Amino acid sequence: MPGDAAAAAETSSGGAGDLARLSLNTATTKGWTLREAVEGAARAGLPAVGLWRDRVAEAGLEESARIVREAGLRVSSLCRGGFLTAADDAGIDAALQDNRAAIIEAATLGTSELVFVVGGLPAASTFGGAALPYPADRAADGEASTSSEAGRAVVPGADPARDLVASRQRVADRIGELVPVAQEHGVRIVLEPLHPMFAADRAVISTLGQALDLAAPFPAETVGVVVDTYHVWWDPELERQITRAGAEGRIAGYQTCDFLLPFAADPLLSRGHVGDGYVDFATITRWVTAAGYTGDVEVEIFNQTIWDTPGDQTLATMAARHRTHVLPHL
Amino acid sequence: MPGDAAAAAETSSGGAGDLARLSLNTATTKGWTLREAVEGAARAGLPAVGLWRDRVAEAGLEESARIVREAGLRVSSLCRGGFLTAADDAGIDAALQDNRAAIIEAATLGTSELVFVVGGLPAASTFGGAALPYPADRAADGEASTSSEAGRAVVPGADPARDLVASRQRVADRIGELVPVAQEHGVRIVLEPLHPMFAADRAVISTLGQALDLAAPFPAETVGVVVDTYHVWWDPELERQITRAGAEGRIAGYQTCDFLLPFAADPLLSRGHVGDGYVDFATITRWVTAAGYTGDVEVEIFNQTIWDTPGDQTLATMAARHRTHVLPHL
Repeated sequence: MPGDAAAAAETSSGGAGDLARLSLNTATTKGWTLREAVEGAARAGLPAVGLWRDRVAEAGLEESARIVREAGLRVSSLCRGGFLTAADDAGIDAALQDNRAAIIEAATLGTSELVFVVGGLPAASTFGGAALPYPADRAADGEASTSSEAGRAVVPGADPARDLVASRQRVADRIGELVPVAQEHGVRIVLEPLHPMFAADRAVISTLGQALDLAAPFPAETVGVVVDTYHVWWDPELERQITRAGAEGRIAGYQTCDFLLPFAADPLLSRGHVGDGYVDFATITRWVTAAGYTGDVEVEIFNQTIWDTPGDQTLATMAARHRTHVLPHL
Repeated sequence: MPGDAAAAAETSSGGAGDLARLSLNTATTKGWTLREAVEGAARAGLPAVGLWRDRVAEAGLEESARIVREAGLRVSSLCRGGFLTAADDAGIDAALQDNRAAIIEAATLGTSELVFVVGGLPAASTFGGAALPYPADRAADGEASTSSEAGRAVVPGADPARDLVASRQRVADRIGELVPVAQEHGVRIVLEPLHPMFAADRAVISTLGQALDLAAPFPAETVGVVVDTYHVWWDPELERQITRAGAEGRIAGYQTCDFLLPFAADPLLSRGHVGDGYVDFATITRWVTAAGYTGDVEVEIFNQTIWDTPGDQTLATMAARHRTHVLPHL
């Protein structure tokens, strides 16, 4: 596009000032190791990276912290904790243990922001997979049906594994249990509402308002929210809830990513570079700015075409689109 | 599934009583003409059909009304009016003209309920298609950029064709213009919130609460809402908004359809028979019932596998699933 060429020319002229808040999430440059992503971000003049735990694990926790520190970058966030919807004791214990580890990893990496994707319905056995059969049919296969929630009336004929209300209550319960751990380590649990198309299998938090309601019982420095444009752009309550999040001091991150159609075969990969899809970045960025957010703007894109592109080129496009569509509104 | 066999056996034993509120939407049996769908529904013991305008047009309006009447069925709804988001005069005029025609068709067919899918962003040229380029690039192609909205501050650098807030305001304006026409013909404009995955290209109304806010200025007998489980099951506000819709007397329809994963190549076709996906029908049906809804339960499924299945078999499955998952909660 013509606008891109001009913006790309700007990129090469350098000037760190206008990229002073742009952060590369390692998921965007999937082919790069943590070290390659950190070095690539530094080369492009970015001051920050958002890290995924798999890349950190590959490089080693202490080594990852050292790589980022020595490159002179900061860590804008760590992805991801969460997956808190298990209803059975073993699943609950495993979730708590994994999230305690993630909290310590975030603290070690020097970021206060640990992004939580809270998990889907127990009826989902895999990401993007078909729903499990109903209890009667599970029982017929010799599998025990999910136990009902204590203290809540159970609807006759309802399947606990499809019970969104109960799944969300378990998320609230687990957050309450993890808050003291997060406080101890100076880490914030950052709730990420995911697009409702992922409500079944990935996250039973679908709106910013819902995330803020879940955060409400806890201090703002311990439970926050992240605004990922891909997930929330459609929400008729968006302006109001961004304003609320700002007033409550809970905006822990702003992630820019466009919403593409047609959907990729795996809709999770229908994320695109800012400017390639339907999101109104000017308006949403102004809402986030008006709400008082002054932190990093992280670009996290899952997209096979972008993953097949050399990382430096991806970073150049990222910077160009940031300058065109986001920076004027920050 | 074992439960199905038992339910199917029930179907063959007949008894119209338990199907007294079940309606076949003609989109579910796509291979059938209107006459075939009406006769099939009657054979299966259903008292009602929901009609799409394309099937009505094929058969002729008066003839369609006669076919339904002579089969002794009622029309639970007509699909669909809407597509109200055009920003240019020609688009606005075309939308008003088409919806005036749809209102008259509904009245002629003897249904008061005309379902509206309100339309997507002007940036969407086709259903499910890529976003149009930004104005600078459209202008470079010799195309005029979309004019800004009167009376609303325009964000510099924003693209009016991606402006959700303005698109929603145009929907509100068009509804206001159509209300007198609907009143004149005794027809209700039924706003359908669509799943947020369709916010870009099909409907800028994404939640029941938003639909009710849009309906609020008008009488309940002229502007209502439909609860389609596929579109709204994920909404954390669902119970509250169903209760509100009932209290306001605006529930004009209840459509049961399951949410399937993995997504079909066209996600619009990821709708499934009740019981095959993730929706908690027991809970949602109880909310709808508690809200005072006593009307038809319409089954509208877009799904290639179901379209490839003989219509009578589809109707038998529909009835079986209705008895298992919905009827106990009505």
